[in-house]
Amino acid sequence: MPSGTTHTLNGCLQILCSGESAPTHRHSASAIRFIIKGNGACTVVDGEKIPMKEGDLILTPTMMWHEHSNETSEPVIWFDGLDAPFVDLLNLSFFDPYPDGKQPITKPDSYTTKRLTMAGLRPAGSRPEANFGLPFIYRWEETYQALTRLAALEGEGDPYDGVVLDYVNPINGGPTLPSLGCQIQLLRPGENTRVHRHTSSAVYHVFRGSGYSMVNDERIEWTQGDTFALPPWAWHRFGNPTSKEAILFSINDKPILEPHGLYREETKE
Amino acid sequence: MPSGTTHTLNGCLQILCSGESAPTHRHSASAIRFIIKGNGACTVVDGEKIPMKEGDLILTPTMMWHEHSNETSEPVIWFDGLDAPFVDLLNLSFFDPYPDGKQPITKPDSYTTKRLTMAGLRPAGSRPEANFGLPFIYRWEETYQALTRLAALEGEGDPYDGVVLDYVNPINGGPTLPSLGCQIQLLRPGENTRVHRHTSSAVYHVFRGSGYSMVNDERIEWTQGDTFALPPWAWHRFGNPTSKEAILFSINDKPILEPHGLYREETKE
Amino acid sequence: MPSGTTHTLNGCLQILCSGESAPTHRHSASAIRFIIKGNGACTVVDGEKIPMKEGDLILTPTMMWHEHSNETSEPVIWFDGLDAPFVDLLNLSFFDPYPDGKQPITKPDSYTTKRLTMAGLRPAGSRPEANFGLPFIYRWEETYQALTRLAALEGEGDPYDGVVLDYVNPINGGPTLPSLGCQIQLLRPGENTRVHRHTSSAVYHVFRGSGYSMVNDERIEWTQGDTFALPPWAWHRFGNPTSKEAILFSINDKPILEPHGLYREETKE
Amino acid sequence: MPSGTTHTLNGCLQILCSGESAPTHRHSASAIRFIIKGNGACTVVDGEKIPMKEGDLILTPTMMWHEHSNETSEPVIWFDGLDAPFVDLLNLSFFDPYPDGKQPITKPDSYTTKRLTMAGLRPAGSRPEANFGLPFIYRWEETYQALTRLAALEGEGDPYDGVVLDYVNPINGGPTLPSLGCQIQLLRPGENTRVHRHTSSAVYHVFRGSGYSMVNDERIEWTQGDTFALPPWAWHRFGNPTSKEAILFSINDKPILEPHGLYREETKE
Repeated sequence: MPSGTTHTLNGCLQILCSGESAPTHRHSASAIRFIIKGNGACTVVDGEKIPMKEGDLILTPTMMWHEHSNETSEPVIWFDGLDAPFVDLLNLSFFDPYPDGKQPITKPDSYTTKRLTMAGLRPAGSRPEANFGLPFIYRWEETYQALTRLAALEGEGDPYDGVVLDYVNPINGGPTLPSLGCQIQLLRPGENTRVHRHTSSAVYHVFRGSGYSMVNDERIEWTQGDTFALPPWAWHRFGNPTSKEAILFSINDKPILEPHGLYREETKE
Repeated sequence: MPSGTTHTLNGCLQILCSGESAPTHRHSASAIRFIIKGNGACTVVDGEKIPMKEGDLILTPTMMWHEHSNETSEPVIWFDGLDAPFVDLLNLSFFDPYPDGKQPITKPDSYTTKRLTMAGLRPAGSRPEANFGLPFIYRWEETYQALTRLAALEGEGDPYDGVVLDYVNPINGGPTLPSLGCQIQLLRPGENTRVHRHTSSAVYHVFRGSGYSMVNDERIEWTQGDTFALPPWAWHRFGNPTSKEAILFSINDKPILEPHGLYREETKE
Repeated sequence: MPSGTTHTLNGCLQILCSGESAPTHRHSASAIRFIIKGNGACTVVDGEKIPMKEGDLILTPTMMWHEHSNETSEPVIWFDGLDAPFVDLLNLSFFDPYPDGKQPITKPDSYTTKRLTMAGLRPAGSRPEANFGLPFIYRWEETYQALTRLAALEGEGDPYDGVVLDYVNPINGGPTLPSLGCQIQLLRPGENTRVHRHTSSAVYHVFRGSGYSMVNDERIEWTQGDTFALPPWAWHRFGNPTSKEAILFSINDKPILEPHGLYREETKE
Repeated sequence: MPSGTTHTLNGCLQILCSGESAPTHRHSASAIRFIIKGNGACTVVDGEKIPMKEGDLILTPTMMWHEHSNETSEPVIWFDGLDAPFVDLLNLSFFDPYPDGKQPITKPDSYTTKRLTMAGLRPAGSRPEANFGLPFIYRWEETYQALTRLAALEGEGDPYDGVVLDYVNPINGGPTLPSLGCQIQLLRPGENTRVHRHTSSAVYHVFRGSGYSMVNDERIEWTQGDTFALPPWAWHRFGNPTSKEAILFSINDKPILEPHGLYREETKE
């Protein structure tokens, strides 16, 4: 592990056992959930029930009521990402339990996602609602399809990160959430990326395959299920020496830095 | 027909017979093509070959090289929409034939669309390229799916326009093109919308079904294949008295008016 | 005069004789007034009385109630600039007389300008009000001071236009009005600018001094009090062969073109 | 003092004695200097020499080379405000000494300020340079004039803060610096403001007069030369029980919170 780490984000694995539920609450920290294992648990965000499946990414923007429940017979595990350290640093950590125990379901299942299915199509007049994020779900089936379609295009792929997609605000194309960015990244068999560094930090979760990262002079070997941090301004590159594709999900704090002129990057010859 | 009409847009039907082609050219007017009949003709925009199928919408932003060809055995008909009257009014109509006859194909088929498939996912770092529009294609299969999914959501639908989707810039969520907006609109069997008016004008093409519009005091009956204009500031509403859904494609000049404080709307009790 | 002209703007000279007044009205066209001769007449914009002095620029944004009166003993002459041709082209020309004859004065004299005196200082929280323009006045005393201070800075001055200031929205730095830009331009004794062209058109009024413009191949000699138009995409340059400074006030339609990707410029070797 | 404090900003008093100088350096933290006492010392920012006088506010945006020197016979004291705690929290504190000891003077004295003197006037085409702040100086003479002119307007003044001006980016109207806001605030003799709270925190310096602040339940008496902090989300109000005006200069972290949806305010009945 590099000596530094991220100071704005936290990422942890969370398990919700069969029959368990988390009561309705909200907080000023923004959160994302990336489902690693298990299908069929649910989260409710802002009155909208969202079923969780492996590979799905679910957003919980700042101060939106939410809760989780697992009514299936198997445990569900997800990667939980928050900007809580950033919000704590600012001394702005608010937390409220829901006054009456459990928020009512007020919208059809996956309402927001059903209204926004395809890049470039949007219910007329829906722009303003999106300022600070939506209770959106990015389905794995479509995410993986977009990732492999991009990988198949000749000449595509970032020299430093391989084939990489930003999850963006589906209304205005801004960052995933105003203080938290998410990416999904595919390293092709045998791929070795070039070295660069940036002032943003990140937490990675290995969703599929295995490989390694060079962070400064340290080699971090990783395989499916691992989680590791990239500190700010550390030289780094990625390698996939295997014959299978490797897929990394990650959260980053670039949206925290950019509006304040603090984002920079450098490459090495 | 209402006495007024649109002063900024033109819409016409264009047929490309079997074996016909239009040579490469570009112009300052922005154009869209909405395919009405026939499959398999192609347009090339900015080095990218885009096959045309019924119901597809294809964008040609200002000053991008483009051409069309029909190598199939059936004619292809499309609705052609341009902001040419607006550009002419400004005395800014530029037109260039391609220097060497035919532009080369430099990108994979439907490159832009393949890179932007799902709302909320985007190749990392692709934002700036989108300022004045993309050679994008909105496939009918996905458009119709989005439209019917929206129609199925309880409580959805605009009181004045029925179930209506904006085609938006897939990168930044802005208008279809910076001086031309497009919408697809579904009127459910028996649906009658309420009366309103706005300063923007529009040209409608009836893609499926039939119905009527009340424009000021005039009743315009329309059926599949018809095209009609809505002048600025005219009171209007839509009706679908049939037992089948009616689908209208339209272009409008709202993006021309909004940046200059000239867009307004009014409703009637 | 060049064969072309501007298609979006009109500029004319208006005289208000001693004792005359224009009743309160409003229109969708945006207007500016640049005072050429006479001091002490008044305009009232949106409940705010604004005294007019030579060289002042006064804004009347779209649909704001306004009126003029001259209670002095001398006539007042101003240059009147509007985007009326643009608004007419769109068929969006609205005009209302004030219901009760004369709008009441509801604010202190030159209220808006008194609140916004210095670059970089602004009453807290005043941002949103500025979207479509303010009833602002740019006083000549300060305008001329800014112009000469800029002229005195070594290396300043645009190669194509001499020393030139944009009048900008004092709240957000945007264009003078959302569909009309204004500039004040000083040509130093002996100054000859370089040739360029742009898609925007302009109307110039010669406020001080004399000189000439080359527009395409035509030489336009101008002197104090003259008004001339620059058509879109015409090659042009300015010359001041005299030993006194020449000052041109102008309006342009760059704000109409820019949001739609229609503004371009070219230089000549 | 309230138990909490600001976590993003620091404010301190700095003295530069006669003959002293600080060598050229730069850092990722953004800085402002508000001159409290003494005239005639100089700061150089980005090749531009800026003389310091009492009441002036001088900006040093992120990563701009700067230095200070006092060639007068009296000491100079200023209030130094930085977003250094914020930048440190992010682990992004960069600091460089100037390679060759002292940066050269490359621009005329107070160049940036001379080019931007009056609200609404700007050298043509100067917009893009302003993204992350300018080496700008807000002169006290003009600041105080703007403040008293605003105070003289009937009905002006914020119910929670008295007569208060934002120092804004003179090019685009954005915050003083992208991660640091500044205000100047006048409490009229006898003025008592109403109670509110907001998530942003601030550091105040008493520039003229005396009065008190109620922060939560604590009364903070202050007089000229004092400095005090306002923690986030603390109820507060201001009082000036004297017969003279009181003037507070302050820095705040609202620009850090707003882009991330973390700024909120509440009022009390």
